[in-house]
Parts: sequence; C-alpha cells; structure tokens
Amino acid sequence: MKANPGLANTDLRFWYLIHRTRDAFRICEDQIFSKHGLSTEQYAVLATMKYLGNPTRPTAIARWLERSTNSMSLMIERMVRAGLIKRVRDKSDRRVVQLTITSKGESALRPATLAGLEFIQKVLSPLSYEDRHTLVALLDTLKYEASKYMNPGETTQEMMGSRAPRQADLMKRLVQYTSSSASEAKR
Amino acid sequence: MKANPGLANTDLRFWYLIHRTRDAFRICEDQIFSKHGLSTEQYAVLATMKYLGNPTRPTAIARWLERSTNSMSLMIERMVRAGLIKRVRDKSDRRVVQLTITSKGESALRPATLAGLEFIQKVLSPLSYEDRHTLVALLDTLKYEASKYMNPGETTQEMMGSRAPRQADLMKRLVQYTSSSASEAKR
Repeated sequence: MKANPGLANTDLRFWYLIHRTRDAFRICEDQIFSKHGLSTEQYAVLATMKYLGNPTRPTAIARWLERSTNSMSLMIERMVRAGLIKRVRDKSDRRVVQLTITSKGESALRPATLAGLEFIQKVLSPLSYEDRHTLVALLDTLKYEASKYMNPGETTQEMMGSRAPRQADLMKRLVQYTSSSASEAKR
Repeated sequence: MKANPGLANTDLRFWYLIHRTRDAFRICEDQIFSKHGLSTEQYAVLATMKYLGNPTRPTAIARWLERSTNSMSLMIERMVRAGLIKRVRDKSDRRVVQLTITSKGESALRPATLAGLEFIQKVLSPLSYEDRHTLVALLDTLKYEASKYMNPGETTQEMMGSRAPRQADLMKRLVQYTSSSASEAKR
C-alpha cells in the first residue's frame, strides 16, 4: 500500500489528535485522581478490581489492563504498602493469592469515580447524543483496525468475541457503582 | 455538575475507547518504528526536528512535544550516542547548543515516516472522507475542552492562538517531506 500525500492532511491531523487528545485526558485524570490520593494507574487497578469482582487474582487485573505480570506485581506491591488493597488467601485453594480493596481504597475509589465521570461528562457536554454515538463507533472501528494490524492472523470473531461481553459488563458495573456512590453522597 | 448514570453508558465507552485506541496505536507504532531502528519517542523527536527546521534548539523540541526539559535532555543524550542526531554550535551565538539530524538519523526517519503514514492510511481506510473529517472535528473539540478543564483561566484565543498555526505548518511540512520521500523511493 502506497502512502498518498494528496489525501494525507486529515489523516495526519487525526494521527496527531488521537495522541494529543488522550495526553490531555491523561493530564486531567492525573489531576482529578491525585485529589483523592491516587495515581491514574492506581485508580485503574482499583476500578478494574471493582468490575472483576472481589477478591480478584493479580493475573486477571494484569490481563484486563493489558499490563505485563511483572509491572503489575510492582504496582500491587506499592498499593499494598499504601494500604489501598490487601492480599487474601483463596478459601478453596490456600496457595492462591487474591487481592481485595481495603476500606481506605474504597473511600478513595468512590469519590474518584464520581469525579472522573463528572469530568468525562463535562468534556463531552458540547457534543450531541448523536455525536457521542458517532465518535464511539468511529473509535471502535479504529481500535479494531489497529488490533487487526497487530494480529493479522486472528479472525474477527477471536478478537471481538473475548472482549465485547466483558466490556459491556464493565460498563454496567461502573454505572451501578457510580449510582450507588451518588445516592450515598446525597445522604 | 452531577454525574448522570442514566446518560453514562456511551460516555464511559468513549472514556475507555480514547485510552485503548491510542494504546493500540502506540503498540503498532512501536512495531513499525522499531523496524527502522527507532523507538516511537525517538521517531517523535526526529520528526519534530524535521518540522521545526534544522538546526533546532532542545527547548523548542521539548516545548513542541510537551515534555519536561529534563526528560528531553536524557532522550537527546541517548540519541546523540546512538548517532541519530548531533550537537552543533549556533553560528551567531556560540554559547547556544543546537541539534541537527545526522545522515544515519535521516535514513531512519524517511522510511519510518512513510511506514507510519501507510499504517495510518490503512487503519483509516474503512472510514469515508466525511467520517475522517467528523472524527477530526470531534477530537479537536474534546482536546480543546480538556485543555479548558486544565487551564480554566486561559481564554479561547490564548489556547488556540499559539498552537493552531504551528499545527497547520507541521502538517504541511510532513506532507512535503513524505512526498519527497515517496518520489525518492520510486527512483
């Protein structure tokens, strides 16, 4: 496939924007979560543990966040020392270590989740409902195309099959979680 | 502003996708640029030097890439040792150090740029011309909203004024650069 300079301007602008938009989001998230004593990565670990259910195996968190087991171990060690999570033994197999969120972790995660969701809604507020749907559909296509580029052998079904239901579930759980946080905040 | 769980599903999906789409792009880019002996960050430095003109001051590169001067110094040191760039003295003020791309750097940057552009065009290929324009406009809005969130004091003009012309220029230069590379590749 030949690069076509005539068509390239919008494509280059997209290339630049996909990186810089996410960078800008990351800077905002760092600000928001640090107000609740969490790094953005620590927030991602706690939120993932919330979605996947309690207690959670470290390997499941690493898989969900697409992180190596090594870098996940370091992060978990730091979060245990910070008192955000703790290690527990699996009741059915005591050799297996699992993780649970501590009450300190919970009391950071709840307001951080609400603050993050408020940020996303604020940033998205100039976009109509239709625009948001279009944006999600376009990003979905691009993420899929990039995965195909990385794994040319895999079929569509293999790529979509394993993630789609888990993502839907993630969304449902996070919405439930934030609405229970919201009603608690009202009390 | 109150988080509204009823509206949240598309918004959460966007939040997830903006991070994961860019992650997927980054993994592809790492693969592509490493074939030309460059890390993605080294590629970004070389491409920025190309846009900003030759020779370039380290601070100008850091500003463009929104990196700290410290982390930029480390990266530049490594790239000088790898023979991709070299330090030169400014002719009008010999105290000022500037950087130029070496011929080794040039011969990595040219094919890497073409390969990167081919990747972007391939990934964008299922999207119509209109969809690409819509996507760029939506991302532009979101990047602007995120900047506003980070810097609530700045006016629109301050935020847009400094970057918009430089971005347009960047695009023009990269297109010129890739088309000269493409015609060289044909020879």
